[in-house]
Amino acid sequence: MKNIITISRQFGSGGRSIGKAVAERLGYDYFDKDLIERIAKESGLSKDYIEKNGEHSPGTNIFSYAFVGRNRRGESVEDYLWNKQREVILNIADKGNCVIVGRCADYILRDRENCLNVFVHSDIEKRAERIVKLYGETDQKPKKRLMDKDRTRKLNYKYYTDRDWGMSQNYHLSLDSGVIGIERCEELIATLAQEL
Amino acid sequence: MKNIITISRQFGSGGRSIGKAVAERLGYDYFDKDLIERIAKESGLSKDYIEKNGEHSPGTNIFSYAFVGRNRRGESVEDYLWNKQREVILNIADKGNCVIVGRCADYILRDRENCLNVFVHSDIEKRAERIVKLYGETDQKPKKRLMDKDRTRKLNYKYYTDRDWGMSQNYHLSLDSGVIGIERCEELIATLAQEL
Repeated sequence: MKNIITISRQFGSGGRSIGKAVAERLGYDYFDKDLIERIAKESGLSKDYIEKNGEHSPGTNIFSYAFVGRNRRGESVEDYLWNKQREVILNIADKGNCVIVGRCADYILRDRENCLNVFVHSDIEKRAERIVKLYGETDQKPKKRLMDKDRTRKLNYKYYTDRDWGMSQNYHLSLDSGVIGIERCEELIATLAQEL
Repeated sequence: MKNIITISRQFGSGGRSIGKAVAERLGYDYFDKDLIERIAKESGLSKDYIEKNGEHSPGTNIFSYAFVGRNRRGESVEDYLWNKQREVILNIADKGNCVIVGRCADYILRDRENCLNVFVHSDIEKRAERIVKLYGETDQKPKKRLMDKDRTRKLNYKYYTDRDWGMSQNYHLSLDSGVIGIERCEELIATLAQEL
């Protein structure tokens, strides 16, 4: 039984909605990058920052550090947030019964025996079609948007993990959602999580 | 229905035996690198080489070229063999109902709609255990053998395909056979090939 599932995914591959559906199927809690970032920011502000820096407005506080680039411990705002997110992910994993999408959770939880790490990808044509359908057109061409997102995720993953984003060896299961189908991916992940 | 299955795999991951079992389950023909290399050598010698170079002994002929490094078309022996293997794989794929293990078949057949590309991997501890059990001890430490093989496959794949060996995006399905189990991998591949 794998009661923690991490899902890493290419933008537009449907990985996020697969993660949500798997959580629903298994009755697990669902966390994605927005949620984790929010919790991390809240916890960071309420615990460390406010304690140490008194009663500044949180917004001002965070952004003044962003402006200076480093906080008093010498961390950049990005590193500070990364560390907070890491803590949040470790806490979530301790409780178990959860699906975590993004935020290098596969790497952070790589040593947990009860964790199933999944990567979801799809070819760029199918992803372009999907993001236009879901998020509408923007000034930027859909393929350009995808390539920019892929590049950012790849660099971010490399920076924090020193591993290559999307390498099969980082995951127990990698799925091409464009060929296998979103629903079949959900089913495969949910089934394997239960039986392994 | 995907009636061609290519399996790329890390040495010691069980990918080859998974391929054989999938072929048996589906009643498909099975080809691995040794078989493809043999057919390619035979076809090369009987068609091109003997026609062009008269009745030399095949062995001498091939190895004299290996010694010089290039044949009359300017190909290295490796490139010559690669091209022959490519032809063999395309012929096998035209007939369909086959499982092909290794030889960059995923890349060679990347545009075939009826092809399911699979990558099988496992962590180095489990692979080391497996190769010692299957092939016995050698002078070289098992982990060193694995790392050498991985490196060679990676370089070979990069040279002929300009892609990164083991990247999820190259395959429809990537499986950690150490966590998912050899038999479950067989079943997943066979089932997906039939239903997609």
